[in-house]
Amino acid sequence: MIIVCKNSAGTKRIEELTNRFEAQGFRTHCSQGTQSTIIGLIGDTSKIDVEDVQALPIVEKVQRVSEPFKLVNRKFHAEDTIVDVNGVKIGGGSFGVIAGPCSVESEEQIVSCARAIKAAGGTFLRGGAFKPRTSPYAFRGLKAKGLDLLLTAKKETGLPIVTELMSLDHLDLFNDVDVIQIGARNMQNFEMLDEIGKCNKPILLKRGLANTIEEWLMSAEYIMSGGNENVILCERGIRTFETATRNTLDIAAVPVLKAMTHLPIVVDPSHATGKSALVPTLSKTAVVAGADGLMVEVHPNPSEALCDGAQSITPAVFADMMGDIRTLCAFEHKSL
Amino acid sequence: MIIVCKNSAGTKRIEELTNRFEAQGFRTHCSQGTQSTIIGLIGDTSKIDVEDVQALPIVEKVQRVSEPFKLVNRKFHAEDTIVDVNGVKIGGGSFGVIAGPCSVESEEQIVSCARAIKAAGGTFLRGGAFKPRTSPYAFRGLKAKGLDLLLTAKKETGLPIVTELMSLDHLDLFNDVDVIQIGARNMQNFEMLDEIGKCNKPILLKRGLANTIEEWLMSAEYIMSGGNENVILCERGIRTFETATRNTLDIAAVPVLKAMTHLPIVVDPSHATGKSALVPTLSKTAVVAGADGLMVEVHPNPSEALCDGAQSITPAVFADMMGDIRTLCAFEHKSL
Amino acid sequence: MIIVCKNSAGTKRIEELTNRFEAQGFRTHCSQGTQSTIIGLIGDTSKIDVEDVQALPIVEKVQRVSEPFKLVNRKFHAEDTIVDVNGVKIGGGSFGVIAGPCSVESEEQIVSCARAIKAAGGTFLRGGAFKPRTSPYAFRGLKAKGLDLLLTAKKETGLPIVTELMSLDHLDLFNDVDVIQIGARNMQNFEMLDEIGKCNKPILLKRGLANTIEEWLMSAEYIMSGGNENVILCERGIRTFETATRNTLDIAAVPVLKAMTHLPIVVDPSHATGKSALVPTLSKTAVVAGADGLMVEVHPNPSEALCDGAQSITPAVFADMMGDIRTLCAFEHKSL
Amino acid sequence: MIIVCKNSAGTKRIEELTNRFEAQGFRTHCSQGTQSTIIGLIGDTSKIDVEDVQALPIVEKVQRVSEPFKLVNRKFHAEDTIVDVNGVKIGGGSFGVIAGPCSVESEEQIVSCARAIKAAGGTFLRGGAFKPRTSPYAFRGLKAKGLDLLLTAKKETGLPIVTELMSLDHLDLFNDVDVIQIGARNMQNFEMLDEIGKCNKPILLKRGLANTIEEWLMSAEYIMSGGNENVILCERGIRTFETATRNTLDIAAVPVLKAMTHLPIVVDPSHATGKSALVPTLSKTAVVAGADGLMVEVHPNPSEALCDGAQSITPAVFADMMGDIRTLCAFEHKSL
Repeated sequence: MIIVCKNSAGTKRIEELTNRFEAQGFRTHCSQGTQSTIIGLIGDTSKIDVEDVQALPIVEKVQRVSEPFKLVNRKFHAEDTIVDVNGVKIGGGSFGVIAGPCSVESEEQIVSCARAIKAAGGTFLRGGAFKPRTSPYAFRGLKAKGLDLLLTAKKETGLPIVTELMSLDHLDLFNDVDVIQIGARNMQNFEMLDEIGKCNKPILLKRGLANTIEEWLMSAEYIMSGGNENVILCERGIRTFETATRNTLDIAAVPVLKAMTHLPIVVDPSHATGKSALVPTLSKTAVVAGADGLMVEVHPNPSEALCDGAQSITPAVFADMMGDIRTLCAFEHKSL
Repeated sequence: MIIVCKNSAGTKRIEELTNRFEAQGFRTHCSQGTQSTIIGLIGDTSKIDVEDVQALPIVEKVQRVSEPFKLVNRKFHAEDTIVDVNGVKIGGGSFGVIAGPCSVESEEQIVSCARAIKAAGGTFLRGGAFKPRTSPYAFRGLKAKGLDLLLTAKKETGLPIVTELMSLDHLDLFNDVDVIQIGARNMQNFEMLDEIGKCNKPILLKRGLANTIEEWLMSAEYIMSGGNENVILCERGIRTFETATRNTLDIAAVPVLKAMTHLPIVVDPSHATGKSALVPTLSKTAVVAGADGLMVEVHPNPSEALCDGAQSITPAVFADMMGDIRTLCAFEHKSL
Repeated sequence: MIIVCKNSAGTKRIEELTNRFEAQGFRTHCSQGTQSTIIGLIGDTSKIDVEDVQALPIVEKVQRVSEPFKLVNRKFHAEDTIVDVNGVKIGGGSFGVIAGPCSVESEEQIVSCARAIKAAGGTFLRGGAFKPRTSPYAFRGLKAKGLDLLLTAKKETGLPIVTELMSLDHLDLFNDVDVIQIGARNMQNFEMLDEIGKCNKPILLKRGLANTIEEWLMSAEYIMSGGNENVILCERGIRTFETATRNTLDIAAVPVLKAMTHLPIVVDPSHATGKSALVPTLSKTAVVAGADGLMVEVHPNPSEALCDGAQSITPAVFADMMGDIRTLCAFEHKSL
Repeated sequence: MIIVCKNSAGTKRIEELTNRFEAQGFRTHCSQGTQSTIIGLIGDTSKIDVEDVQALPIVEKVQRVSEPFKLVNRKFHAEDTIVDVNGVKIGGGSFGVIAGPCSVESEEQIVSCARAIKAAGGTFLRGGAFKPRTSPYAFRGLKAKGLDLLLTAKKETGLPIVTELMSLDHLDLFNDVDVIQIGARNMQNFEMLDEIGKCNKPILLKRGLANTIEEWLMSAEYIMSGGNENVILCERGIRTFETATRNTLDIAAVPVLKAMTHLPIVVDPSHATGKSALVPTLSKTAVVAGADGLMVEVHPNPSEALCDGAQSITPAVFADMMGDIRTLCAFEHKSL
């Protein structure tokens, strides 16, 4: 880590700072310039928060040399991580397609949806049992009953289940869930990250609405540092000034992440845009961007859906779209 | 709620939509234009998520007429809410000053800090026992031990305690805490909002890093709908492209909120900027913007602080700043 | 346009408002609700600025029913606009590849670069003669001399020239330029838009750093309303909080624009990311997103480039990338 | 400037880079680390664009040590710049109040408005003659005729005139204008900045919608490097995801700028929020934030204004507000 100190900072205060760092076990190297003094900090700086140092009165600027994340870092783990869910793989050349309704509504709905997804070549079934809603008055999902219906659909189709965990108090209900989703609003719920780091289920970690790629990787680092190495990252759009789409899909995040981490990355065009008409097109961009999978909302009858209905595509549109996805996966040498 | 349907939407599908809403208990009023059909939706639309409707294939645009929040809405509760914490008030003409270190580090640190704050005219003691940190390797606070030290400082000074809750599992440890802080990263942790809505302690709800004022009020609505009417809103800066400050303090949010809600609003210039040098100046802007209080980081020795050290001001700077705050509170007819 | 008036607005002031609009030639239709009065405004509202109405003290919310743009609107011009530059087409099934260095540096550089681009299948030569630079001390381009060198390269290769206009005072120097580029920082330089609307050259209009899609289309409307129908839109990334890339490529803007306008859209992954390593991958996403072309920086020796050097790819990388682009264009039924 | 090179970068390419910089007249200092090589660049780095270096394939990160701006930098010019407009001062303890309508509409309107502003204690008259409008169909101002009316109002009241320049072609019409305003959309119109840097009139430089404080200062540097030292900075809100206000007033920018530059700073709460109701409150925050002045829209009959009408306050509200501004200026030891 490189720390640029202000002209005004006297040698005494700079010495105090270097002593403080050395007391923490770092080696320091000062170079006195005409305009400022530069401190090089050598050692494991991953536990230092840049903003803390930046905030020091004598500090002008701070620059990390090595990334603050280790376990998720491709530098220390070159080969792609492959998440294997009872034989269904995501990562390292295997492309996964997670599809299903925003909310589980009924057995008929989820089972028919699962069958259609399976038939079209989807590899995972998603569905919300516990739903995060901005309003306390909105539908919050069927909860435990919803989980049961997902498992029924799994029994019918064999598709592994992906569903969101909203509270650690529900964790025991998730025993038969195959992949636990951590939603965008919980990406920095650090207590939750600690706990799921201790369970041995694959985790799908969505990017927060306004979190940087580095913060996102730090949240994945929380999970891995707990011992759970099966983390899938999910880009779902970030919040910007643009209102034509619900969020702005950060497609560049896919190749950027591929260089930074060995973890698989899936893209969710449904939440990224909030518009079903854009889902097939953006799904294609995800494949050629190098993503390891997709997460799309599919509903047998979107306009009747209880929530997020119309960012869902129909099974017919999904089946049609899967044709293109298969062609592009072949082009990218990915198996689907 | 006004729903503008696309030209392309045939009368049949519009009828389906109106029927669907009427089945949910709304009255509808259609007006057929040359370019589009406009549906007026009459009834309690607070449980409808605008984005869900916006996402419907036949819908072009949606516009709320009445706000989706009720209990926090000043329209239905004209007079200011005054949160009274064992006689110390925030709101309705009473200005509160919440001060203290980012993290509780030792009895000596927190007690001396509390004494200095009390002496300078601060009215609440803040201090982190459970700390949210971006990195799993960073200091996470003294936890339960930190809460004990806060209570010691309270015994010594009589200052009510404000500290952050990071997990519902810790709730029983918070029995003697006076005000529970919900951090920016948990502003939309809906399960947590539900639970604290059932407890009868004042809640300080920080604004999320990238949440709109309306989303923030909806989170306050969660707490109030649980039965807890003692909610204090805390503006702490939003995330933007600007990097000169850690976040961008949305000072306009204060007068905007004053018109929308009866709840008290405090401003946290320490987290908003991440720079101690800016804290006294921005604290002054909060008072004249109409805020009901401040939340500032004060540390006896900022440069030795374990976290966020240097966004903290010293007790001397705090005492000095309080002189200006008192003068401006008088100017604004607020008692401090 | 739908105008929702506040409860507080008395009938008298609402009448004043409707009279005011009717005086401007609009028809109005009021519907009195319990909570508010809603005014429907019928007529050509394109000359009304929503923000002006929104700002009226008695107005709560405003909602456009019809878009404020006409000439660029696909609703009134269903078929794709094809921009034909001496036989080289962009739009309507023709894919254009605009490539070249950020800055023209020497005859040797631009000619060799143009030859390599031609050989690899590029269809336009780009190069900066007048360069916008954040710093007054940075290299600003070869100016008139740079334009001459571009024309030399055109003579050598036959590739049409695309280069940026930074001041109307330079317009007469652009007589032999084939496509005039309006940079992101001039997207709302309305006097410039007026003038180039009167010339009969194709215009490449870059999106502003923080402009919405609607604002961008309004700037294109400026050019078309001047009589110039040959406008090409260029998505080059928007400014967000994310710092991993220079800007955030808004890939969803491509399909969104395809539905809103008949104008061709090209994508510039070089400026969008500021990282050459990402250019080939993001170029692929542009094709499958439905773009009509690409604008990429190619430099024979990026690390020696005088400006933006290293967001440029080498001719070898460009040639390699063009193989993928051709395959994906075929997949999208586009001719290149 | 500190350049952190990638592990992968071999010594040969690092040598090439250092040679390249030394050829440009810089001294370099390399320190070889285990993980990376760090190059220290000594010399006048103001003409180097950080993003260019950042983009180099072998470069991991770049950090400026000294700011890229010199003439506007407080480090090299400690005392406040005072802009004196025929005896009316802004900066260095003198607080200026620039007020007037968004657009000049008629002699009666501008003269009556000017008289009211003068009577209430305003020190400058503002009014738009040439208006930037998002839509080509919206009212664009009275242009030359508007300038004449402003001069009439100046003759009547003695108030110096502040009005926006939208094109260099109009410059000769501005001979009798006292302060030339450069609008947000032209903040990075570098050709315009070059030209006005050569004229000897005070310039009011508005911040761009999405420009950083550093970019803003670089634009001021353009003007000063042309020889014009009379630059006034105007914070007018930045674009964020929040929609409750038109823009987000970055109040922290005021104290941040005070530390970075000696130039005076004024705040425009009218454009920052787009809501007249917020103008008096935010004007107060500007004074205590340390601003050197205000720019507010005042209109005799806002609801009849042709543009931005209702973000304007009435002369009565302005007069009332000026009472508070005077009190707070006294508190801040500023003369008004």
